[in-house]
Amino acid sequence: MAATKTYLTGVQTSGMPHIGNYIGAIKPALAAASENDTMYFLADFHSLNSVKDPGRLRGDIRSVAATWLACGLDPDRTIIYRQSSIPEVFELTAILASVTAKGLMNRAHAYKAARDRNEAAGGTDLDAGVNMGLFNYPILMAADILVMEADVVPVGRDQVQHIEYTGDIARAFNHLYGGSYAFPIPQGSYPEGEASILPGIDGRKMSKSYDNHIPIFLPENKLKKLVRRIPTDSTPVEAPKDPDSSVPFQLLAQFAPAERTAQVRKRLEEGGMGWGELKNDLFEVLNDTFAPMRERYEELVAPGSDLDSILAAGAERARERSRATLAKVRTAVGID
Amino acid sequence: MAATKTYLTGVQTSGMPHIGNYIGAIKPALAAASENDTMYFLADFHSLNSVKDPGRLRGDIRSVAATWLACGLDPDRTIIYRQSSIPEVFELTAILASVTAKGLMNRAHAYKAARDRNEAAGGTDLDAGVNMGLFNYPILMAADILVMEADVVPVGRDQVQHIEYTGDIARAFNHLYGGSYAFPIPQGSYPEGEASILPGIDGRKMSKSYDNHIPIFLPENKLKKLVRRIPTDSTPVEAPKDPDSSVPFQLLAQFAPAERTAQVRKRLEEGGMGWGELKNDLFEVLNDTFAPMRERYEELVAPGSDLDSILAAGAERARERSRATLAKVRTAVGID
Repeated sequence: MAATKTYLTGVQTSGMPHIGNYIGAIKPALAAASENDTMYFLADFHSLNSVKDPGRLRGDIRSVAATWLACGLDPDRTIIYRQSSIPEVFELTAILASVTAKGLMNRAHAYKAARDRNEAAGGTDLDAGVNMGLFNYPILMAADILVMEADVVPVGRDQVQHIEYTGDIARAFNHLYGGSYAFPIPQGSYPEGEASILPGIDGRKMSKSYDNHIPIFLPENKLKKLVRRIPTDSTPVEAPKDPDSSVPFQLLAQFAPAERTAQVRKRLEEGGMGWGELKNDLFEVLNDTFAPMRERYEELVAPGSDLDSILAAGAERARERSRATLAKVRTAVGID
Repeated sequence: MAATKTYLTGVQTSGMPHIGNYIGAIKPALAAASENDTMYFLADFHSLNSVKDPGRLRGDIRSVAATWLACGLDPDRTIIYRQSSIPEVFELTAILASVTAKGLMNRAHAYKAARDRNEAAGGTDLDAGVNMGLFNYPILMAADILVMEADVVPVGRDQVQHIEYTGDIARAFNHLYGGSYAFPIPQGSYPEGEASILPGIDGRKMSKSYDNHIPIFLPENKLKKLVRRIPTDSTPVEAPKDPDSSVPFQLLAQFAPAERTAQVRKRLEEGGMGWGELKNDLFEVLNDTFAPMRERYEELVAPGSDLDSILAAGAERARERSRATLAKVRTAVGID
């Protein structure tokens, strides 16, 4: 019988997700978490590289933690903690740096993309605007993973290199010190097939950067207004309509039960259902889906809620692992 | 009245010092430490970048700590601790990385020297053999200093850039977050005039790399043998000799009381004192100087000695400062 594998997922603390993130990332991740031994961490130190506003960062961290819990992450089953609660991550980062070739970092995608942007902008200093947090990011990410001795890391395909780098750094350590302690080499787990991509209210892919997104926990009245703003053409109520080229219908199809979706499709194709009615239906479906989660979210995000104690309890459980790993690593390198 | 200033000194953990280190660095540092509020730390994480042998590193750390204590560092007055005992150093390193421009690191002397060596050797990959511990070293050093809110950092002139970088990094942080918390900007304190340079047993500057050094705590019989090995010419006992071109005399002059030194000088210049007698004198003086320290060193370096509890007590005192600093820094950046 195989030992239970530990899954580790890092979550960016970049503010409230939208309903596209919910369908594409949160919902499948939570389904997987309910089946595996899973740890979730909020990568708040990573955010320091881009967010220099303490109030915003503080709010983002609470908001993202509250979102995952409200969406169904069970903190009794799944360990959820803040990266910043695990001092061993940062100690291990310093140790891993001593076995990581600088050349590896020179070739990291995120760093090279920053250089390419500088070059495209005609700059002569290709490192302009690059801080050492960005440059060191792959080592910190390796420490996040290795300190928990994670076996599987579910990530998007854009993260393939980070998982490879974590393996490279772990192998470099194991080569030098493996007689005393060797890190397990983690495997990436990548989504199969195409992720569901929801259209935003302007028909393009839903994305915060297009400002066409529907935040997951919008208050009811604001949700209603936003759904009403989705542009539609002037086809009369009686006329037949093409559901598959309609943004409201595509969104509805992601959230409504199959039967209801089929009904709406039929009425649109036959004529007799107007865009206004469709949008009312969409609002209802979204509100039915998210209202209970929103209520829990509002409770958790409020000052003095259970959120802090949930995260503290998760950190304590996570630190049982990280302390044990670091003790072994320290003995292996001779600093004990 | 000025508040008491905190002096912070980092000590490399590179094995037992020699008597040249004692005269040039340890003795003046301890004299200064007895007059100031001073903290000493053993930079054991820095050593990881070059020492990959855990047994050697472990021994080096104990040996250097025992040496400083045996030479007179008073752990009640001066806080002595291991860098690796201060988790806040590594957390602060990660925070400082997010405000440190990569360009600053590109221009660091130690890194550029490594590139120059690669270039001189005809290499095409100038980063060959450079690990990220070396590249990040100036940030770790800044964290060592800033986490203790040190005011003065006594260092050699080769460390000027590191002190400047620490100021640059502190100012970058203060510029972004100074409304909430600002680091004091530390000052370097550099030796005035020329340091005493002792000749090694071959007449060149005493240095481990020339293998011409006299280790500070050599056992008595080995010390005697090593002093006897200092080459001298065949001038007969009766002939007058030039003390200032004699290695044994130059060494004697550093350790003997002024009166005895003058006496020996007179006898050499007048003739009647042979090299053998001079070497016997030198052995006696060295042995008188170091025997009591050596005894204390042997006690401290033995397994189960007071060394661990002294370092643990120092770490506890140091962490009162580092915890307080990190709490303020975390609040300033929004991770609290």
